[in-house]
Amino acid sequence: MKSNVGLIGLGLMGRPMGRNWLRAGFPLTVWNRTKSRADELVQAGAKWAASPREVAAQSDVVVTIVSDPPAVEEVVFGPSGKSDFGALAGMKAGSTLIDSSTVSPELARRIGAACAERGIDFLDAPVTGGTWGAEKGELIFMVGGKTGVLDHVKPVLEAVGKRFFLLGPNGAGQTVKLGMNLLLALEVDALAESLALVTAAGVTAEQMVEVIQSSMGRSPLLDVKAPLILKNEFPASFPLRLMHKDVRLALEMARKCGVVLPAGSAAYGTYSTVKESSPDDPDFSAIARFWRKAAHA
Amino acid sequence: MKSNVGLIGLGLMGRPMGRNWLRAGFPLTVWNRTKSRADELVQAGAKWAASPREVAAQSDVVVTIVSDPPAVEEVVFGPSGKSDFGALAGMKAGSTLIDSSTVSPELARRIGAACAERGIDFLDAPVTGGTWGAEKGELIFMVGGKTGVLDHVKPVLEAVGKRFFLLGPNGAGQTVKLGMNLLLALEVDALAESLALVTAAGVTAEQMVEVIQSSMGRSPLLDVKAPLILKNEFPASFPLRLMHKDVRLALEMARKCGVVLPAGSAAYGTYSTVKESSPDDPDFSAIARFWRKAAHA
Repeated sequence: MKSNVGLIGLGLMGRPMGRNWLRAGFPLTVWNRTKSRADELVQAGAKWAASPREVAAQSDVVVTIVSDPPAVEEVVFGPSGKSDFGALAGMKAGSTLIDSSTVSPELARRIGAACAERGIDFLDAPVTGGTWGAEKGELIFMVGGKTGVLDHVKPVLEAVGKRFFLLGPNGAGQTVKLGMNLLLALEVDALAESLALVTAAGVTAEQMVEVIQSSMGRSPLLDVKAPLILKNEFPASFPLRLMHKDVRLALEMARKCGVVLPAGSAAYGTYSTVKESSPDDPDFSAIARFWRKAAHA
Repeated sequence: MKSNVGLIGLGLMGRPMGRNWLRAGFPLTVWNRTKSRADELVQAGAKWAASPREVAAQSDVVVTIVSDPPAVEEVVFGPSGKSDFGALAGMKAGSTLIDSSTVSPELARRIGAACAERGIDFLDAPVTGGTWGAEKGELIFMVGGKTGVLDHVKPVLEAVGKRFFLLGPNGAGQTVKLGMNLLLALEVDALAESLALVTAAGVTAEQMVEVIQSSMGRSPLLDVKAPLILKNEFPASFPLRLMHKDVRLALEMARKCGVVLPAGSAAYGTYSTVKESSPDDPDFSAIARFWRKAAHA
């Protein structure tokens, strides 16, 4: 029999994941801060619950995928003074909590410890692959936790993902996710700086992108983001505000580990500047705006 | 009949290019500062000449590929007080000079102007693809100059390259090359920072590379450089001292164009630090040494 799946967080990633669980025949209970975002999934057969706790009470496997650490704390532990709101309060011993949000390894370990006290299994399992990967059910999961737990929930995760890397104890999934997003943030920033340089010297961005795409520096990420930069249109696939948050988390983690990240720090400054001046919640490839402005100034 | 090709500069790139011209049946005359580097090509049929000028006197198409701007000035114009040494002094009107070194767009335009005065055609045509591309005859040429000139020398270049991007007037090839190497320098620096971060937090570099290679951030460049970083062995394919020089040229060009490159500037600092402490002339992927030391400190 299929596990009852609980899904908390119906953003750009959560919604397509929910659709894939329904398609695969998993009974699905959902909650989201903004209820209207659940409409489509409820029409497709998902059950709405009034709180993360009520989602948890009806589920064998609960997946949280929300935007940042405070949001994770709220849906897992409940906001302060409302401990009957969070998922932990509703979960049965023997059930599994999976957090696919991107947070600090430290928070992942804290949730893992709280779960262990209650006999609940926990995996930190952030994802990469973007909305495209989420829609295709081809996400890549970076997992911290125990092998047995991952094996147990794999049938559930296989409905939404294609690769599952078990990287160590709780926290290791988030560690790798932050390292991954640092890399992705820098790759797109590198493209933006490269385009800024050559366009200021009279070569077109289109020419530069064509050369890059025939070079060793080509990557699937740049293949996807370069056309957005060329069109100067940035519909959010991976919102800039979230990439900004992830680079911040990476730099915080680096500080705690005693590692300096000169290029990462520089890129964070640029992401911060562009975020402040981008009220339209664009994709993170809008980092290129900084350069367009500089070039035209 | 095949053009007489002159090749000035027999380093990591020049030697395999020379082999490919010989294989394709082009009469080849060569010169290099260190004569012993010509031995292999001379045994394979190339003719040694005593100076760049003498190479030029025997060639229809002269290709220079040396390590930096001062070296280019020396082989093209001759060192000061020795104007009978440089290639320009030997070239016939109607012949073509191609500089495949990486230098500033400004120097490329200066050479172009000097050639024009003498009725010589000039292309700035730096390459990308590394020693691997040079050996396979699959280099990518980024070309500044006139269409007619490129068409004229294409039979020569096709023996060593597979793609030819004509990007604008003299200087445009170097502009794009500097933008390209800025991108490549930042991509490998991004990998190094990402590995520094996760290894300091207890995940192995091997695990991180495996996840990267299944992600959108994968690139042929990282596929080639990651194994060197994992082994901590850096035989020079693209020497760090040259990448350091190229990032410096990119930043100088940026300054002249009024563009700031925060991540590029930060990466330059790191490349400088690693270069100073690397007496062994390693590949530029040795940028990872900075973090290995930091992590082990």
